[in-house]
Amino acid sequence: MVNIMTDNEAILAANSAYYLAFAACDLVKMGQIWADDDISCVHPGWPILVGREAVIASYRNILNHPNQDRVQHRNDTALISGEHGRVFCIEFVGGMALAITNWFQKVDGTWRMIHHQASPINPTQEEITPPAGNRLN
Amino acid sequence: MVNIMTDNEAILAANSAYYLAFAACDLVKMGQIWADDDISCVHPGWPILVGREAVIASYRNILNHPNQDRVQHRNDTALISGEHGRVFCIEFVGGMALAITNWFQKVDGTWRMIHHQASPINPTQEEITPPAGNRLN
Repeated sequence: MVNIMTDNEAILAANSAYYLAFAACDLVKMGQIWADDDISCVHPGWPILVGREAVIASYRNILNHPNQDRVQHRNDTALISGEHGRVFCIEFVGGMALAITNWFQKVDGTWRMIHHQASPINPTQEEITPPAGNRLN
Repeated sequence: MVNIMTDNEAILAANSAYYLAFAACDLVKMGQIWADDDISCVHPGWPILVGREAVIASYRNILNHPNQDRVQHRNDTALISGEHGRVFCIEFVGGMALAITNWFQKVDGTWRMIHHQASPINPTQEEITPPAGNRLN
């Protein structure tokens, strides 16, 4: 079977897979999406986490939290340069809007996440209206 | 003259050069630190900026602002993987503490910035004490 996805489609699919794993509280899938080495993460309000052990532990805590808010994403836009690619999007979490960079690196033909960073923004009214086509759960 | 800096030293020097250019309001130097292509930036509270024109314009606005707060940085830590390197640090700006990722790519032997992102954090009392050895101006 021939993989007919373009790089742009593939990295956007990887980005969507991240949010699907989040919505499903699927830590195994989340662990597959993240690369094995040289990874880092800045959750909203958290200190900078560097290394797979710290990053995966943070998702274990978040995904196991009984009151974790649903995360929605939209405006996904890819910027690809060689084996590196960034996906920018807006997350909506518990009434907050966050400017997100999800950074991927192609490892053996697969886009794996190597960095995630969230920055609160001041959304316009239009932006905070829940996106109809982008509900994750 | 032989360049005897290690990659780690060189990328930390590039990171410091960014903050020196900021402190000196040196837009020319800032433009040299940023790479020519495929750059992006998330200032605190700002929307995601993609492309050299938008990124450099944002620094023109910030550096020309008469009430721009002084920016201090500390805890600079590099994570290098091939031609890409991230420097994580904490910025102190106008009483805020920010978790920063400054992403560099080696272009013709020089670490050039390709992404900057700031995320507000809740600093401990120790963290918000101005660092004595790290004043930029």
